Formats: sequence, C-alpha cells, structure tokens
Amino acid sequence: MRATLIYGAGDIRIEEVPDPTIQQPTDAVVRVVQSCICGSDLWPYGSKEPSPTGARIGHEFLGVVEELGSEVTGLRRGDLVVAPFVWSDNTCEFCQEGLQTSCLHGGSWGGTELDGGQGEAVRVPQASGTLVKLPVSEDSALLPSLLTLSDVFSTGHHCAVTAGVNAGTDVTVIGDGAVGLMAVMAAKRLGAERIILMGRHKDRTDLGREFGASDVVAERGAEGIERVRELTGGRGTRTVLECVGLRPAIETAYAVVRDGGTISRVGAPQYGEVPADFGTFLRNVTLTGGVAPARAYIEELLPDVLDGTLQPGKVFTDTVDLDGVPAGYEAMKDRKALKVLVKP
Amino acid sequence: MRATLIYGAGDIRIEEVPDPTIQQPTDAVVRVVQSCICGSDLWPYGSKEPSPTGARIGHEFLGVVEELGSEVTGLRRGDLVVAPFVWSDNTCEFCQEGLQTSCLHGGSWGGTELDGGQGEAVRVPQASGTLVKLPVSEDSALLPSLLTLSDVFSTGHHCAVTAGVNAGTDVTVIGDGAVGLMAVMAAKRLGAERIILMGRHKDRTDLGREFGASDVVAERGAEGIERVRELTGGRGTRTVLECVGLRPAIETAYAVVRDGGTISRVGAPQYGEVPADFGTFLRNVTLTGGVAPARAYIEELLPDVLDGTLQPGKVFTDTVDLDGVPAGYEAMKDRKALKVLVKP
Repeated sequence: MRATLIYGAGDIRIEEVPDPTIQQPTDAVVRVVQSCICGSDLWPYGSKEPSPTGARIGHEFLGVVEELGSEVTGLRRGDLVVAPFVWSDNTCEFCQEGLQTSCLHGGSWGGTELDGGQGEAVRVPQASGTLVKLPVSEDSALLPSLLTLSDVFSTGHHCAVTAGVNAGTDVTVIGDGAVGLMAVMAAKRLGAERIILMGRHKDRTDLGREFGASDVVAERGAEGIERVRELTGGRGTRTVLECVGLRPAIETAYAVVRDGGTISRVGAPQYGEVPADFGTFLRNVTLTGGVAPARAYIEELLPDVLDGTLQPGKVFTDTVDLDGVPAGYEAMKDRKALKVLVKP
Repeated sequence: MRATLIYGAGDIRIEEVPDPTIQQPTDAVVRVVQSCICGSDLWPYGSKEPSPTGARIGHEFLGVVEELGSEVTGLRRGDLVVAPFVWSDNTCEFCQEGLQTSCLHGGSWGGTELDGGQGEAVRVPQASGTLVKLPVSEDSALLPSLLTLSDVFSTGHHCAVTAGVNAGTDVTVIGDGAVGLMAVMAAKRLGAERIILMGRHKDRTDLGREFGASDVVAERGAEGIERVRELTGGRGTRTVLECVGLRPAIETAYAVVRDGGTISRVGAPQYGEVPADFGTFLRNVTLTGGVAPARAYIEELLPDVLDGTLQPGKVFTDTVDLDGVPAGYEAMKDRKALKVLVKP
C-alpha cells in the first residue's frame, strides 16, 4: 500500500510500504477512507532532524474494518469506524477514568513500528478499545465532521471541559487554528455565555464567529491583552483555552485570565516551563489541560454531529489525495489552508 | 503601643509605635490577644534588604474589638474576633465568589502604612467584612486553635479543597512545616483515604500522623519520589499538596502526581516558573492553588475547632511575649520551633 512518511523538516514523501496485517489477536486492519493533517504534524514538519529512515505519520483517520484479530469484540468486517489519535485498551484503570491517553497498554500511531493515519490502511492495536463504530456509510457527507472526533474536535472539547466551561462561563480562546476554532465550538456547546476569540486571520475568525465566538480580538501581545481586558471590565475571563502551544500564547493566557480562573492548554507545548511566580500565586490561577483523551469523548459528541447540529468538518478548507499530502503540509505551514482533509 | 518591625534579614525589633485609631468609618481597632509567626514571615527574615525604616510585620491575630468606626456593622466593642491574613470587604464580586484575597477593596497587613499582627493592637480596615466573631471568651483554651483559622489551617484547607480532595482521594503532602501538617488535617477532614506525608523531621511527621497521615516518607529528592511511587503501585497519588514553596518541592510534586492528577500549591513560591513541557502535557497534570482566601473558610472550619474535634493549635510548639518575638523568628528559622505563638 501507499503511505506518508516524514524524513525530516520539510521532507514528506509518499511511498510504497508493506500492507498491514493482523499481528496480535487484538488487532484490526482498517482501510482508511478519510484522514487529515494535524497542526501538531507541523512541529516535526518544521523541525525534525533529517533521517535516512522515514517515519510514518498521521494520527487521525476513519475507515472500514477489513480484517479482525481473533480476540477483537464489538466490531465486524465492513464496519465504518473512527480512531482516536492514540490507541488504548479502554479497560485499564486510566481508561476507566477517561484518561485513555495514559492507557497502560496504549500508544501512538506512526513512527517506525506502526502505521500512521496518512496512508491507505492501518493496523490498529487494541482494536476493541480503540475503534468506535459510526452508524453511517462510507459515502456519507458527514464523514469530515465525524473525522474531527478523532482529534481536533475532541481536543477542543477537552480544553473546554478541563477548563470548567459551562453555562454562563466567559471564555477566551487563544488561537484561530483548527483546534482554537473547535474549542470555540465546544465552549458554545457547553453553554458558554461569552467567547472571545484571539486570532488575526479574518477568514478563520469569521468561521470562529459562525462556531459561536461573540468577540474577536485580532491584536496580539500587549495590545491583545489590553483589548481582552477592556472587553471584560479589566478582569479577564474565568476560563482561557490556550490552543497554540507557543510561549507567547501561554503568557497571554496568564494575562487574560481572571483571578481565580482556569487556563486549559491543549496546544502541544513548544516551551518547557510556564510562569508560576508570586504574582500568579496571589491570583489563584489554575493551569490544566493536556493531551486530549479523544476516546473518552467520541460517544458524547457523536449525536450532535450525526444530527447536523454541529458541523466541525467546516475546519477542512482543502482536500487532497495521498499524492497531494506534501503540498497539504506546505499549505498548512504557510497558513494557506486551515486544515487539510486527505482521501487516500 | 508596642509592635514588631522588620528592618532587614535577621533584624526583627520590638518598638514603640503610635496607637491605632479609627481613620475610616469602616475601621475597627482590635487589641491583640494572640498572634503568631508564619513560615512566610521567614522569607523576608531570610532575605529582606536592610532599610532604615522598619516595616510592621505579622498577619495572623485574634483579639478584642476596642473601637468601631461609624459604618461598621455586625460587631460590638468587647467581641472576640479572628482576622484572616488579608483584609477584604467581603462584598465585592471576588469576595462573593470566595476569593477574598483578590478583593477589590482589600489588602495586606503590615508594611509601612498599616499595623501588623505581631503587636499590641491593629487598626482593621473593612472591619465588617474582615473580622469573624468567635463565640468564646479571651481566656478560652481554644484560642490557639482558633488562631490557626487566620492563616495556617485555612491555608492547608485551601490546598486540599483546590486539589479536589474528597472521600476516597489519595494524597501526597509535601512539607512537614505547619502548613503541611495543616494540609494533612484538612485532607483527613475532607475524607482522604490515604495521606502520604513527605517530611524528614520526626517530631513533625509524628504530629502529622496524629493529624491523619497514613504514611511518612522521610527521604527527599529522587529517593523520596521513588518511595512514594513504591507506595502507590508506581502511579503516584491523584492529589499532591505542595506546602513548601521551593523549586525542589514543586518538582517533586510533578514527579509524584498520578497522570490526570492535581497539584495544589500553597507554599509562597520562591521560584518563577514550573515544569510544563511536553512530558507533563502528555500526563494531563493540573496545577492549582495559590494564596488562601482564609476569610472564605473560617465559618466552615469553626465548628470542628469549637467542639474540639480538631486541634490545629497543636502546631504551636513555643509561646513568647512581644519581647520574645525576635528569638521566636530565630527558633523557627533554625527549625527548633515548628510555629511560635505570640501573646503580646
């Protein structure tokens, strides 16, 4: 089959690789119907050291079950399924607590040992725990929105949930990338009263308004902070959803959160530490969030996507086939595409 | 009257100062019956730059109302009252949310403008909001325990509450100072099932066991972390109460918290940043806590102290009069005293 490999920064190649097969009785093989490129894929795309051996990449996909190991339960050949962006047994103590990203028997897609999502097929370890059956056919127009349950919508939801967003909360969302826009949608879904979106790309913040943002702050840095404070009577918002992962974003989060408020971060951090000095201590600011256990949220979010209440698939601005994946990375890096859908 | 002033590191003096008087209609004057020295007083005692003008110090006291401004309600001359370690109007939006430390019209005791707790009397701004009446007489044996509501017990309680300690939680408490021991008591009161106390002073950890610690880890650093992990099946505890404020303590907190768990910090931070890299991100660790809004907790904690269920006053190992305060600081610095009670 064909799949996407990364050989280093800026070096994405589509190559012939071995067809996946059942290796463990708990495996399944899934033919990928739709996959996509993640903002977090851009970190290795921007900085990975060159290597003579490529690594498989892509961690978001939905597809059709083609083969099943002897111990897989709850799935049949032909089922359309979505995979969360980490695989897990869904039975260990962490999974039972809804923290499948810490599964004792789970792991990540891609690399040198496992298939990635950006390919024609994937061997899925712990298939019973990992895959969630979708009650639609593979030609459904809902597929792009369902695919967002794999990562980006679930990640936005995790951000809002861990921040404690609920009816009446006020929220600042930092970042107008796909995760930020999904955080807006998730916050709105949870009942947030006011959602201030900080982002400077009008096409993206316009989509953010469609998803539920009540205010947009295009300014950055000190100006942006000042603007949010103006909008909130000088106090900041009770919850801040940090959806970027860069140091200036997390610093902005501390500056726009209300005393006693909560910052949740879901942007994969490209920093090592965060401010925690006496000043933040006096303000009783909580920092939460982390990598999203998408598996914990899929069933909860599914109905709103199936009935069309929510259309998170609108974050896909471009669609490519496998040959178009390298250009898809470049378009996302250059911010010409918000998020790229891949149909292998 | 006489009061305690700090002129620089190691330089505590007892001096004659002006008697406090009503300056605002919302003021009260309180004659101090009992005060004490706080672990946080040791930070300026250890590092304050010398100054020709001393600063008043002490932020924990209970005493008798001697004068009342014309707008003070709910209090009478002769009332025995306890003051939380910051004063607040108890009516602003932050106070109404239980975050009196962020009161829009509040502030701190001591310095060059206000009286401190370690003196014969205190002018109390925002007296109606700040002071809590105590239903005992000034010769009650309960006074030392009631005095802990001013700061140290309320701070331990804040730590446990913000960490989410409740029935069945497992807890690691880092630090066997007075705050750490109060955090043990608070965690036990909230129903914690297992409380691991990290501390290396046997007399203190023995008191910690009396307050509810189920395990004591005397080792520090990597050894201490390993020991907590051994006690918790390699996982760490769901909640960690960081009651020191030094960088090694907060680093230990990250190392002994379970994935998905919460660290609460109430030790005034002597560091500027905390670890927040990709590793902690993958573990979904929450950092919360901060300066404790003692005012929010006094009424809740009061009954257990009044009926003798809890005896937080046991943290006072030494009692001095005002002349003994400089020696009290030295004894706490040298860890010869756990916490020093002051009877002016």
